Amino acid sequence: MASRTAPDPARRSERARAAVLTAAAELVAEVGYGKLTIEAIAARAGVGKQTIYRWWPSKGAVVFDAFLAVNQHEGGLALPDTGDLAADLRAVLRPTSDELTDPRADRTYRAIIAELLNDPVLHSEYRTRLLDPLLEVTRDRLRAAREAGQLAPDADLDLAVELVYGPLYYRWQYRLGPLTHEHADRLVDAALRALNHPAASGTSDA
Amino acid sequence: MASRTAPDPARRSERARAAVLTAAAELVAEVGYGKLTIEAIAARAGVGKQTIYRWWPSKGAVVFDAFLAVNQHEGGLALPDTGDLAADLRAVLRPTSDELTDPRADRTYRAIIAELLNDPVLHSEYRTRLLDPLLEVTRDRLRAAREAGQLAPDADLDLAVELVYGPLYYRWQYRLGPLTHEHADRLVDAALRALNHPAASGTSDA
Repeated sequence: MASRTAPDPARRSERARAAVLTAAAELVAEVGYGKLTIEAIAARAGVGKQTIYRWWPSKGAVVFDAFLAVNQHEGGLALPDTGDLAADLRAVLRPTSDELTDPRADRTYRAIIAELLNDPVLHSEYRTRLLDPLLEVTRDRLRAAREAGQLAPDADLDLAVELVYGPLYYRWQYRLGPLTHEHADRLVDAALRALNHPAASGTSDA
Repeated sequence: MASRTAPDPARRSERARAAVLTAAAELVAEVGYGKLTIEAIAARAGVGKQTIYRWWPSKGAVVFDAFLAVNQHEGGLALPDTGDLAADLRAVLRPTSDELTDPRADRTYRAIIAELLNDPVLHSEYRTRLLDPLLEVTRDRLRAAREAGQLAPDADLDLAVELVYGPLYYRWQYRLGPLTHEHADRLVDAALRALNHPAASGTSDA
């Protein structure tokens, strides 16, 4: 596990660290970020409060590390490339919708994003360890489609990834509607029409 | 002066309330939400802390009310309808981009959204007093375009408004790129292509 705080390499220390991250992840999902305390994390992890404060400066930092420990993409992230861009994007947006619909994940994400919004350091870590790798593999997949002549040669891939993910996260963050597979599929169709992809449905169901 | 010698308690109370909201709006932009205190708001507004706590349960609630006092749409919100849907959407997205680019507004918005994410009551107020009215007038404008035969009869207006605003707020929230008028215009073009609007540019510049 990549570590910002470079813990003591001793195995016991590593075990304590892992226990803290597990406890933090469980508790934020159970009680929400607002009611979570360092004391509760320490108690569940079986360590002292000072152990936590030695490694993390704040509750937000622990929860954030716990989240990244589960979710970060360590070089293994890639979008499928079956040659069918719509299918490959659906293969990302459908499970993302499922995950955001899970009440524990929903609550954890909201806590994390609330922290990011007020903390430039956490924001930067989130970008580096989580969001940028996702956007990069998505751009890679779209670039492959562009090179295969499926998108216009001048397609703006930055705008393209924002068209794919932006509407989904907007609906989720403001609870504007259900995140179903059907919705994910319609969003993929709409994004492909926005990109003038030839496989995009000709009828305007968006 | 007459108003000073015959103080009306209701008026004085209203003035104190307005002073608190002004102070909160100024301070959150100046020092950020994290460093803002009820004490500082009370000092700048010239009222006691207890006056603030009598009206608002928390710092978040004051800042939120201050924000809404400036931004809420009291029945006057509407999208222009010049008959040119692209121009009308640009007329919304360009000033929105300008506003989000202003450092004070940026900081205030981030503080507000961080609060919403952890507080269902504030979230619900934000929806009712701010977001839903905006989405509703946008849907109205798109519905008019649909009725004018400019969008397909089955166009999904909920997905449509998310395609218009989602990518913009996603780019802003995660600081993915600059929010320029050129970007706003490209986003409008892309959204209209997604909606199969006949005025959408035929080339894929998204």
